[in-house]
Amino acid sequence: MSSTSEPPGEGGRTVGEVGERGILGEVFGVLAEHGAAAGSLRDVVVGPGDDTAHLRVRTGAVLATTDTMVRGQDWLDAWSTGQDVGEKIVTQNLADLASMGGRGTGVLVTLLCDRELPLAWCRDLTTGLARACSRAGVPVVGGDLSAAGPGVVAVSVTALGELAEGIPGAVLRSGARPGDVLAVSGPLGRSHAGLEQLRAGARQGRWVDHHLRPWVDLEQGPVAALAGATAMIDVSDGLGRDGGRVARASGVDLLLDEAAVDDLAARLAPELGLEAARRAVLGGGEEHELLATFPVGAVPTGWVVLGGAEQVQGEPTVRLGEQALDPDGGGWDHFGG
Amino acid sequence: MSSTSEPPGEGGRTVGEVGERGILGEVFGVLAEHGAAAGSLRDVVVGPGDDTAHLRVRTGAVLATTDTMVRGQDWLDAWSTGQDVGEKIVTQNLADLASMGGRGTGVLVTLLCDRELPLAWCRDLTTGLARACSRAGVPVVGGDLSAAGPGVVAVSVTALGELAEGIPGAVLRSGARPGDVLAVSGPLGRSHAGLEQLRAGARQGRWVDHHLRPWVDLEQGPVAALAGATAMIDVSDGLGRDGGRVARASGVDLLLDEAAVDDLAARLAPELGLEAARRAVLGGGEEHELLATFPVGAVPTGWVVLGGAEQVQGEPTVRLGEQALDPDGGGWDHFGG
Repeated sequence: MSSTSEPPGEGGRTVGEVGERGILGEVFGVLAEHGAAAGSLRDVVVGPGDDTAHLRVRTGAVLATTDTMVRGQDWLDAWSTGQDVGEKIVTQNLADLASMGGRGTGVLVTLLCDRELPLAWCRDLTTGLARACSRAGVPVVGGDLSAAGPGVVAVSVTALGELAEGIPGAVLRSGARPGDVLAVSGPLGRSHAGLEQLRAGARQGRWVDHHLRPWVDLEQGPVAALAGATAMIDVSDGLGRDGGRVARASGVDLLLDEAAVDDLAARLAPELGLEAARRAVLGGGEEHELLATFPVGAVPTGWVVLGGAEQVQGEPTVRLGEQALDPDGGGWDHFGG
Repeated sequence: MSSTSEPPGEGGRTVGEVGERGILGEVFGVLAEHGAAAGSLRDVVVGPGDDTAHLRVRTGAVLATTDTMVRGQDWLDAWSTGQDVGEKIVTQNLADLASMGGRGTGVLVTLLCDRELPLAWCRDLTTGLARACSRAGVPVVGGDLSAAGPGVVAVSVTALGELAEGIPGAVLRSGARPGDVLAVSGPLGRSHAGLEQLRAGARQGRWVDHHLRPWVDLEQGPVAALAGATAMIDVSDGLGRDGGRVARASGVDLLLDEAAVDDLAARLAPELGLEAARRAVLGGGEEHELLATFPVGAVPTGWVVLGGAEQVQGEPTVRLGEQALDPDGGGWDHFGG
């Protein structure tokens, strides 16, 4: 199941065999090793072990977001280790905070699983959670364990955070104005490129690694907010779909520059071919780079300019030259399939 | 499945048929009807629809807790409607806040489900969530939807809250001192009595209703904290198990008064018989009444005195007369079974 797990039936114990206390013993041990235990961070008034966590709030308001990953739906055991899953789910939650101009202050983690799940997988998951939390300086402050039917494994993370100091308000999706510059905090399409390579049989490589454990510079969220970003979102469902959300919320059209898209695609073209690379840039999800609009002249260093916001013409859309991107194309609907 | 759901295959649509947007349309409609939508409450800076929620915090710190209910594990469709599940999971999360001396300020809800789940069940669930949230004055501020394999339905709630005004610190499990009085905010054993009646074939009645939709006066949490409670927990896993948690965290023995236990049991005895009634009082979970210790003379009006805290003798235990209650008996381990 996981490359570092003992396979079941070869001496590895299951979560059902060790019970709730046994699982928690493992979890708290791994968190402590990685400095992601609640006691190690200054803003935790009460950590795990009581009825609720209690976190200090400096800015007068708390950011809160939650995301779930489900085995077979959001990851395949053949491709992802427990550690991959743990890193990815923390990153995607923290990217949601970053895209408001925020930073994490604590996470709650829920594991829902089959009693037959190897304890080693649970330990791997915790290692991944702990690594990502530790890198971001965010403690695990609470959570829940629940047993579920055969084969079910689902991991939910709720991330709490605050706006970084000096940022007057959260950066919403709705603030883009005609004339703003559209930019992204890093290259797009890497996660999709990795997914294509996994489908083609690859098991490692830089794009594969980015798909399994997307990593972006979350500090660019506060950087963008301080620079005056007017709207921001992280690219979790694709440039067309997430850009469309900003366009609709703001009541603008977003116009993508063909040369900028081609530049991004060129980085992926040697592996994917040019057409697939363009599709990866325009439609690839799970990137978690930040997509934002800025007043002219305010784009932070290192961001990639993609185009700009324009006066809306009819329904708000994302356009590449004259062509409107399908807001539901190349993206992801959990139920639409 | 639910008494108010259209059964699948008789004209009822499934969540897979309406997709993510269709589900969210239903959900936001039901929340708005019940006044549990985020826009209706003053402390919501940013509600659902952006990357994260943003909630005003008045007291300098936020309380956060999470709980999951799984179909087949935490409820049976034959006994519980979607509405029952929605009410119960909000109540059990808010009871965790109350037991620290807190009140809710917002909840995040995650639904993980089979694509074949009837949309009507999802609507029922939302009605239950909205009813409980509305009663407590707490908005739904965000959440997540995820598809899962056949037959899987799981609902997670993360509740955020704050200490009530005038309370200097959260009431922990660890503050009980020898000489303190042990008391509970209401009668115990009702949920267990209802479970026994469901097992015996009943489908309604006051204990059955309490099991399906436990309701307790959550305001007693702040009341107890203001009265000077030294330790507090809600009875989710049984008096033996939850009392044991307070005893161990505080390093005291808790001595239960036999007459007090008999008085509580007497209320249930006509339905259950005396012995089963005593087991319900001592071991019944999912009660969510608040169990707290107070300095002598500080027990709030309406609370039921159960005994007191004493100097520890060896391992901290909960004792009924000379008999130590098994800390793992009559309680609930999600994995131990």
